[in-house]
Amino acid sequence: LKLPASGEGRQVSDAGERAVIERIRQRLPPAPAALVVGIGDDAAVARPDRGALQVLTTDALVEGVHFDRRFSTPADIGSKALAVNVSDIAAMGGAPRLALLSLMLPAETTLEMVDGLIDGLIAMAAASGVTLAGGNLTRTPGPLVIDVTVVGSVKPRKILRRGGGRAGDAVYVTGEIGAAAAGLGWLRAHADTPCLPDDAALAACVMRHRRPEPRTRIGSLLGRNRAANACMDLSDGLADAVAEVAAASGTGALIDAALLPIHPGARAWFTSAGLDPVAAALSGGDDYELLFTVPKRRRGRLRAVIREGRGVTVTRIGELTADREVALVRDGVREPLPAGFVHF
Amino acid sequence: LKLPASGEGRQVSDAGERAVIERIRQRLPPAPAALVVGIGDDAAVARPDRGALQVLTTDALVEGVHFDRRFSTPADIGSKALAVNVSDIAAMGGAPRLALLSLMLPAETTLEMVDGLIDGLIAMAAASGVTLAGGNLTRTPGPLVIDVTVVGSVKPRKILRRGGGRAGDAVYVTGEIGAAAAGLGWLRAHADTPCLPDDAALAACVMRHRRPEPRTRIGSLLGRNRAANACMDLSDGLADAVAEVAAASGTGALIDAALLPIHPGARAWFTSAGLDPVAAALSGGDDYELLFTVPKRRRGRLRAVIREGRGVTVTRIGELTADREVALVRDGVREPLPAGFVHF
Repeated sequence: LKLPASGEGRQVSDAGERAVIERIRQRLPPAPAALVVGIGDDAAVARPDRGALQVLTTDALVEGVHFDRRFSTPADIGSKALAVNVSDIAAMGGAPRLALLSLMLPAETTLEMVDGLIDGLIAMAAASGVTLAGGNLTRTPGPLVIDVTVVGSVKPRKILRRGGGRAGDAVYVTGEIGAAAAGLGWLRAHADTPCLPDDAALAACVMRHRRPEPRTRIGSLLGRNRAANACMDLSDGLADAVAEVAAASGTGALIDAALLPIHPGARAWFTSAGLDPVAAALSGGDDYELLFTVPKRRRGRLRAVIREGRGVTVTRIGELTADREVALVRDGVREPLPAGFVHF
Repeated sequence: LKLPASGEGRQVSDAGERAVIERIRQRLPPAPAALVVGIGDDAAVARPDRGALQVLTTDALVEGVHFDRRFSTPADIGSKALAVNVSDIAAMGGAPRLALLSLMLPAETTLEMVDGLIDGLIAMAAASGVTLAGGNLTRTPGPLVIDVTVVGSVKPRKILRRGGGRAGDAVYVTGEIGAAAAGLGWLRAHADTPCLPDDAALAACVMRHRRPEPRTRIGSLLGRNRAANACMDLSDGLADAVAEVAAASGTGALIDAALLPIHPGARAWFTSAGLDPVAAALSGGDDYELLFTVPKRRRGRLRAVIREGRGVTVTRIGELTADREVALVRDGVREPLPAGFVHF
């Protein structure tokens, strides 16, 4: 793996808008039959899934806020721009279907940069069953922005909202937490080292920051068999997600520090940086895992989801409570949950 | 009408992301029943129209490229950001239904600015039958960006593509052309004059730049009764649209300069600025009128559309031809069409 060299190729301002669009179009795989009109008309037209509701989300990556070209390749950025949207669809129990790509490019953006963005986005689209249906391209006097919209589908009564939890439900999280924050921390501390850390666990953390993998399959399974009654993704960190789900559900939550699946590389990195690994993992954003709640009587359904989940781990970390307090229990003592990632 | 004063109020960076989202939410009208999950969850969920295809488009306005705060109020910008997307849906023969709003705000953006953007967007949403279903908010170190996605619906076999025209079809345009370009020209020439021109026709041109009105109803009618076989909006100017429709349809086109419905205020402004009004009106972008083609046997259907079109004028300006030449006929002499608006 190589971090990006500074672009020296032809710039989008020389190539012109149409040439860039044509270049993007040539990189796309053949469109499925459900895409009736693709790139090149005033709008895209697609056949929706029969009997399904539409799920819609949009999320933007802004250079200097959400990514740094020293730390991420163009393909990383393109992949992540789609992944964060797919994660939102998965968190609703939906299946992602179509993406629209809105690119705002500084004049000096190279064609190689655009190619890389598109290739990363296409790879994530293939992995998550998404078709790039259309988009928009414009120049900007500011930072590069890649804004993606994803439209998915979900069957009625299979929607996973944030507010469906009830007191007594067990709280679960997929995968491991803290990895993306630790990876970004390592990158910032090694900004002049264009390579990955030698330590495999820490290298996995860096890759989690650069190439998050949305929990597309498990989100859809959780919705379909109704194992979960509330769900949310961890874009702003686990602590934020717990607080949001509890508030929307009208409950409190008790999270057990000893149960948190903190990524081993993240635990080591936070500790070496003099941070409390529990607090850092709880407040670190950009982990696109899912938080969800399961009533006692549906634990059998959850086991079925885990069996079909292709090795994604699922960890019980606490429960929703009848009072409105949201707290972390550590060594038998309650403390407030740390705050999540703040966008302004 | 007043152009914006420089904002002196509280800034989004002080208020915080959640407070800004809550402020936006409070300005929205009640959601229709078709919006199953609105703002505040991982994604929005909506019930699609029965038996319809989805139409999807996205378009961004970038400060310093697409708007200038000296010339447009926040409400103008919010209204236009939605209008340009609704225009794309109308150009496909579709009915716009849902919008997602992606706002990238510099830290010093005032809450009043956000309120204005939202109020303008909500007014255009009400006028075009659109529900704001969700979106995303982020800070940016660059210019303000308002990126909107619109999802609409269209019945199968009622889609208006660019490439449906045939040689012999008459070419029509709605409304009047050149107004937005003339209005922007006037604003640039009077950048220190915070008011509208005294001349009513020129004032209408300025308002066309600031508050374009998409041809929502007529686009939908043209698709529904199948009067037109090709359609495109004039976001990049009439000359560009004629060239695009002809290329996509595999035809040429002859446009008659004497038939062009040039806005009277635009004609006067271009002439006073020493420009050829025909060339300026043909190449000026930002006129969100519709260009469409009608086969001879469907002219009766077009008359029905015009009757139901609530006073929107429709003008025949030429025809598609069997050879591939795209030309303007002026005083019996053919000349090439001028180029359209270039984004890079």
